[in-house]
Amino acid sequence: MTDLLAFVSLSLLRPWCWRVAADWLRRGDRPETVARRLLAARHSQESDQGLDVHAVAATAMSRAAASAITAIPWNDAAYPIALTTIADPPPVLWTRGDIRTLSAPSVAIVGSRAASPYGLAVAEQLAADLAAAGLVIVSGLARGVDSAAHRGALAAGGITVAVLGSGVDVIYPAEHAALAKSIDASGAVVSELVPGTRPHQRFFPLRNRIISGLSRAVVVIEAGEKSGSLITARCALDQGRDVLAVPGNVLSGRNRGAHALLRDGAKIVESADDILEELGMRGASEGAPSPDTAAVADPILACLIPGDACDLDEISERSGLTPPRLLPRLFELELLGKVRRVGGGRFVRTDRTC
Amino acid sequence: MTDLLAFVSLSLLRPWCWRVAADWLRRGDRPETVARRLLAARHSQESDQGLDVHAVAATAMSRAAASAITAIPWNDAAYPIALTTIADPPPVLWTRGDIRTLSAPSVAIVGSRAASPYGLAVAEQLAADLAAAGLVIVSGLARGVDSAAHRGALAAGGITVAVLGSGVDVIYPAEHAALAKSIDASGAVVSELVPGTRPHQRFFPLRNRIISGLSRAVVVIEAGEKSGSLITARCALDQGRDVLAVPGNVLSGRNRGAHALLRDGAKIVESADDILEELGMRGASEGAPSPDTAAVADPILACLIPGDACDLDEISERSGLTPPRLLPRLFELELLGKVRRVGGGRFVRTDRTC
Repeated sequence: MTDLLAFVSLSLLRPWCWRVAADWLRRGDRPETVARRLLAARHSQESDQGLDVHAVAATAMSRAAASAITAIPWNDAAYPIALTTIADPPPVLWTRGDIRTLSAPSVAIVGSRAASPYGLAVAEQLAADLAAAGLVIVSGLARGVDSAAHRGALAAGGITVAVLGSGVDVIYPAEHAALAKSIDASGAVVSELVPGTRPHQRFFPLRNRIISGLSRAVVVIEAGEKSGSLITARCALDQGRDVLAVPGNVLSGRNRGAHALLRDGAKIVESADDILEELGMRGASEGAPSPDTAAVADPILACLIPGDACDLDEISERSGLTPPRLLPRLFELELLGKVRRVGGGRFVRTDRTC
Repeated sequence: MTDLLAFVSLSLLRPWCWRVAADWLRRGDRPETVARRLLAARHSQESDQGLDVHAVAATAMSRAAASAITAIPWNDAAYPIALTTIADPPPVLWTRGDIRTLSAPSVAIVGSRAASPYGLAVAEQLAADLAAAGLVIVSGLARGVDSAAHRGALAAGGITVAVLGSGVDVIYPAEHAALAKSIDASGAVVSELVPGTRPHQRFFPLRNRIISGLSRAVVVIEAGEKSGSLITARCALDQGRDVLAVPGNVLSGRNRGAHALLRDGAKIVESADDILEELGMRGASEGAPSPDTAAVADPILACLIPGDACDLDEISERSGLTPPRLLPRLFELELLGKVRRVGGGRFVRTDRTC
């Protein structure tokens, strides 16, 4: 049995095995020995469901080879060092894209799948600013904050890594297929699950430890009280990573998870500088350009709070302009990229004043 | 010279005098002696601008009497005990409304004059919920958060106190005249400035120490980076009061002051419960310890001999508790009827249980 086959076999066992496997590998046991021992334990303790682990592993490996998916086993020099140090590292990282990006300094940005325009705007902005400062942005390719973070990094010409709760050739949600393709063009899409694995609810909490494990810090935006993002934050704490959270509206209920993290000692994030400072990288974006004074002077922009979606009536009331006068100007601002339309005929300001 | 005339005269001197006056009064000097000494110092140190302090004081007192304004000097039993303990207590509190409300347990809510709809909504909601829980809401009658807090308390049928940066018969801003009237119908409008004093920029920072000084905790909503609310928060910290802050949108720039407070250790507020919990009032409706058990075990009661009045320093020395830690507890004991305040900022134990 080759090392790779041993690691792929290990990756097909139950998650509890990985922690044991990591301990044995760290004390110097050979991968093949570890795999054989755990396979034997599996045969004796679990009702064998007829799964031929070696055959499945071999199939996965040829499927990967045929799809330009790289399998990085735990003992490979390319395996991200940050991930080797966690208690339960994935035996294998299946990777699409550039495997070197997995070892670059990175920050995870995670949050609600059902994020508000505010949450999406903050995720996109933080990701863009951190990516511009040279950090890789790690997230989970989910709807909402995750995909906004990936997009923000890409928009800034930066690099981003998506960690999936399915095989890297099974993109979920399906509408993010194009996004995944943009991600692996410069960054990477990774999973501990063998290619072809369908997404399953039980995979996502496990996936979260990889998001935090790859990263130096985890930033949480709009996490509900029992959200997966809080699992990622807990993993980050267990792994000794920094946890930071973005505050927000206290009336909407969307920020209870993030505020709970702040209450428990997470660092508060208002801008990328707060994260860079926490990582000892402050100064990277010092001397940022002053706010667009023209934009601030615009009466419509002046009455829109970035991230806060308003409908036409609200903007009309605040600006004192009637809708017929307002609309052409809003279109102009949209063309300038200062305003974006969101659902329900609402508008959201996209530039930043800070 | 009567005590009241002495105190009113003191209140007409420069603010630095008050700190000195408080020290002398606390060591037992008579108000008249203190006033004479500081008036003499004023004559020798400052260019005398021909101000006849006694005449101005007498005019203020008759003006107050004609307008149903009560002058509460520092050594009056009605003077709020919390305020006697700060470094620079106002020599006189000029009061419209019910002076007893100044001594009830209270929370200050302060924030931006140019608050967003979010800031106003939060201020109103917190004030209403805290007022419904029996707390008096203290604020500064300013536009924005201050007036939203006063209105919230009134809407909940609660009691609120406004501390002005002008005489209590000179309402600023003028559009809040009706609000001030509603406030003093059940609560109080107070100022350290003699009746008839016009508002002036230099009065407001000084006024802020009274807002915090009257309160057990200060809650900050939407404070800019250099706002008066941050002065109130700093006063609160100097006075040993709790400081709490409401988080919000990080893109608007409106919450930088509040977020800076959170970064420096202020408690995060999402709802009134967070404030009640900080004040140890969370159990008010859920299994709080019975008053009697609390009384027997209480270290403050243990060091007070019934009928023997002690000032704060004595209680502090005997109990080993610093005044900032002592005060909230003395408030509670007063509410429970275990302790009564007498003149000169002294306390006397009233129960006979041990």
